[in-house]
Amino acid sequence: MTKSVLILPGDGIGPEITAEAVKILNKLVETDGLDISMEEDLVGGAAYDVHGVPLADATMEKAHQADAVLLGAVGGYKWESLDISVRPEKGLLRLRKEMGLFANLRPAVLYPQLASASTLKPEIVAGLDILIVRELTGGIYFGQPRGIRVLDNGERQGYNTYVYSESEVKRIAHVAFQAAMKRNKKLTSVDKANVLEVTEMWREVVEEVAKEYPEVEVKHMYVDNAAMQLVLNPKQFDVMVTGNMFGDILSDEASMLTGSIGMLASASLDENNKGMYEPSHGSAPDIAGQNKANPLATILSAAMMLRYSLGREDLAVKIEEAISKVLDQGLRTGDIWSEGCTQVTCSEMGDAVVAAL
Amino acid sequence: MTKSVLILPGDGIGPEITAEAVKILNKLVETDGLDISMEEDLVGGAAYDVHGVPLADATMEKAHQADAVLLGAVGGYKWESLDISVRPEKGLLRLRKEMGLFANLRPAVLYPQLASASTLKPEIVAGLDILIVRELTGGIYFGQPRGIRVLDNGERQGYNTYVYSESEVKRIAHVAFQAAMKRNKKLTSVDKANVLEVTEMWREVVEEVAKEYPEVEVKHMYVDNAAMQLVLNPKQFDVMVTGNMFGDILSDEASMLTGSIGMLASASLDENNKGMYEPSHGSAPDIAGQNKANPLATILSAAMMLRYSLGREDLAVKIEEAISKVLDQGLRTGDIWSEGCTQVTCSEMGDAVVAAL
Ligand SMILES: CC(C)[C@H](C(=O)O)[C@@H](O)C(=O)O
Ligand SMILES: CC(C)[C@H](C(=O)O)[C@@H](O)C(=O)O
Repeated sequence: MTKSVLILPGDGIGPEITAEAVKILNKLVETDGLDISMEEDLVGGAAYDVHGVPLADATMEKAHQADAVLLGAVGGYKWESLDISVRPEKGLLRLRKEMGLFANLRPAVLYPQLASASTLKPEIVAGLDILIVRELTGGIYFGQPRGIRVLDNGERQGYNTYVYSESEVKRIAHVAFQAAMKRNKKLTSVDKANVLEVTEMWREVVEEVAKEYPEVEVKHMYVDNAAMQLVLNPKQFDVMVTGNMFGDILSDEASMLTGSIGMLASASLDENNKGMYEPSHGSAPDIAGQNKANPLATILSAAMMLRYSLGREDLAVKIEEAISKVLDQGLRTGDIWSEGCTQVTCSEMGDAVVAAL
Repeated sequence: MTKSVLILPGDGIGPEITAEAVKILNKLVETDGLDISMEEDLVGGAAYDVHGVPLADATMEKAHQADAVLLGAVGGYKWESLDISVRPEKGLLRLRKEMGLFANLRPAVLYPQLASASTLKPEIVAGLDILIVRELTGGIYFGQPRGIRVLDNGERQGYNTYVYSESEVKRIAHVAFQAAMKRNKKLTSVDKANVLEVTEMWREVVEEVAKEYPEVEVKHMYVDNAAMQLVLNPKQFDVMVTGNMFGDILSDEASMLTGSIGMLASASLDENNKGMYEPSHGSAPDIAGQNKANPLATILSAAMMLRYSLGREDLAVKIEEAISKVLDQGLRTGDIWSEGCTQVTCSEMGDAVVAAL
């Protein structure tokens, strides 16, 4: 049966990089019997400019109907002075929340071909392979009450609520333990249990869930220490699990360690492995429209989509191998370029992957 | 007039490292007319074990009376299962809050003698000199309501409140702008203004305050991007200002970039430059009692204390020069040791600094 994919290019470099991923998917439709239909729609600033909201209800409905969503990136200077409730980011947050995509998987992997792109010493990062499991539909991103109020003395006060219930922690912990079981059976749960009650409970629940996975070696780490250990000795980590906000910070730090954030994909999954797929990087408005961006993270996100949501592991592998070939050929976009390699544009990179399929 | 200093060694390596700082201060009393009286008391787990609370009221009172406080570190495995309200960390938080120490200054500096200790490539970190200004008495660390409640469906829910008022943001922004004016006139304010209302207000207030410092070049950065930029290109930063929790995470990340977190001091100041001084690192319970720890961060914290709270800039400089000499001699504790250097113990390092004064 034909599976449906909703393509949401979004803002900044979003349209350029998703166009390359679509190119690859179209090629697979042609040559490998991939049976999908694709439809494109607006999200983020692009949606705000047309509809006055960063995600139209009709688009939300399409996302519910689709078997998977492939997203570029949202946000940019242009919309920074808007109210939080209509910012581009709100479109993304609404998709995550209403689709129930509580499990965000963010691999931080060093590509052997790109070893020299990292700002860390080669011996510190060689072979790095961390999977960050970030809770994505709870925590302070969605906690109520929130807002800005005026106090009796006339000054403003901003407030947000960092909140987790036991069941929210449990289900993300299970995802993380299951991922660890398929990898090196080491899990680090990150919290601030020495100061914040919400994370004190987080730690207790992770400890309970741990009893069901006796083979997994579990460690608890304070978030400040985790931020430090990622720099000091990142290879100590296998799977890391944490809440929405800490996950936002640590996954960006971890992906930058690899020097190849332009290569890192992510999947956001619901309880039935329906998902949304996006590159780990942002919308990079400073280079938007210049055909300079690295489309590989988005193409790899499309590969994850084939694997998790479309039942085509074979094609996921095919894409990953094609990318490996292209890197072996020495083709590089600017962000991962180094001495002796050939610099290519965004669309040239997409063409090269198609050719290598 | 004799100034009074309260010494709070705390837990883990705290007693060892403060003992070395006290050694240096005693020497300066003897030889340089430093007119101080020192008194020691308990904080953290050490206080909990004796008093059942991590900071006795009498100790709090002594801190109020003192001209400055020098603290080692608090916390350790032994007390990790205690309730948050009586954990060692609570002693530290009470001191910060009740003394009104809202401005936490954390330098992240690479010592030229220790360049090779960083896990980052030399060209990325050579000359690194960042000052992180962290708000220390507000934000989610102290926000109300907080706790763990039982929901109607019987499951537990943990919650904390991230809150800032305009005046809290203003006063820390002024500290940061003033620091920037004395340095390279570049300030990066870190927030998550695209998602959290409390930081949306933070950004607006920093922008207002910026108008009073037209010479300072101001940038706003999302916290996830800041965590990334610190790894990618840390030398882009001069002064960074942020809230309590983001400051906790980013200052630890930044200090680890230097490879010499065992060298980094910190000052926590109130509105009149009365302060508490502590090393940026923690209590390292794994090496406690082994005479292995690096006392230099604590000795440098004592130097900061002489500078900011005791009016003896001359002696601060004297200590800093002595430490530089000792490093030039190739003496290193284990954490900063490298090929060709002489490894020394904690107390040997203290003795070497005394000798170099
Ligand atoms: C765009 C923004 C809302 C988002 C987040 O903070 O979750 C982004 O940083 C991410 O990590 O996907
Ligand atoms: C010990 C802990 C409460 C403290 C904090 O989180 O502030 C520490 O990590 C620090 O940064 O000084």
